[in-house]
Amino acid sequence: MAIDFPSPSRDKRELEAAGAFSPRFDEHGLVTAVVTDARDGELLMVAHMNAQALALTIETGIAHYWSRSRQALWKKGETSGNLQTVIEMRTDCDQDAVWLKVQVAGHDATCHTGRRSCFYRTVSRDGSEARLEIVDDRIQFDPAAVYRKDKTE
Amino acid sequence: MAIDFPSPSRDKRELEAAGAFSPRFDEHGLVTAVVTDARDGELLMVAHMNAQALALTIETGIAHYWSRSRQALWKKGETSGNLQTVIEMRTDCDQDAVWLKVQVAGHDATCHTGRRSCFYRTVSRDGSEARLEIVDDRIQFDPAAVYRKDKTE
Repeated sequence: MAIDFPSPSRDKRELEAAGAFSPRFDEHGLVTAVVTDARDGELLMVAHMNAQALALTIETGIAHYWSRSRQALWKKGETSGNLQTVIEMRTDCDQDAVWLKVQVAGHDATCHTGRRSCFYRTVSRDGSEARLEIVDDRIQFDPAAVYRKDKTE
Repeated sequence: MAIDFPSPSRDKRELEAAGAFSPRFDEHGLVTAVVTDARDGELLMVAHMNAQALALTIETGIAHYWSRSRQALWKKGETSGNLQTVIEMRTDCDQDAVWLKVQVAGHDATCHTGRRSCFYRTVSRDGSEARLEIVDDRIQFDPAAVYRKDKTE
């Protein structure tokens, strides 16, 4: 039986309570998904889910997203083998974001650049600029070999 | 000197490299901010930043956001005392999200409900529904006493 989400309550107290999950999709029909590694809590990626991706994730236990760049349902890892098994899902106080704690299969990598996490660069101030520095440059797989054509995410 | 952000490159390889931080703001002028506790990695909240909030955060080391519900710059903790000192900031491969590792002052709480984290509920399947269960109900401060009027975030 496919999962159906009720419309979110307009009562803030109800939105913040236990009960039915009633995600507050934005004007594009999306919620934000924050993905951490269940092993050690490392932040792996931020993505988006529409109702279908969210329902499929809850039903199958495998993370599905909505690719904004491709405008398509996206079963993460379908090409690379780096599927994400959801260990726990949470939502926040106003139900417009979910937190997935996942176990990553395949190369133990989430970023399309081949790295474990998409957040491999620090931001720091340098005068009137902010500069990026790469702090994780361990490449877990070769994107050129794994993806037949270039992908944004 | 105020921080200025250059326009993001249309070259994906440049966006993914080290160098100047050129955030990819969405059509509302926002990037997503994921906030974790520097102490233990716990996910505390998800919020949004416009260029001003991002620049102020980098310049002052104290987290500033853009409140979508109030449509206003939001120095997190200004009312509650729960200011967030940024220990490290990162960005992701396509520069449309930032990750803040913060130290929380005051009540050691981030959620306006008085809890440590906004993600205090798990989502799990129950037949054709998804149900929320409260897994952290420790209230660190009394919202009614701390906020004079009700706030969404």
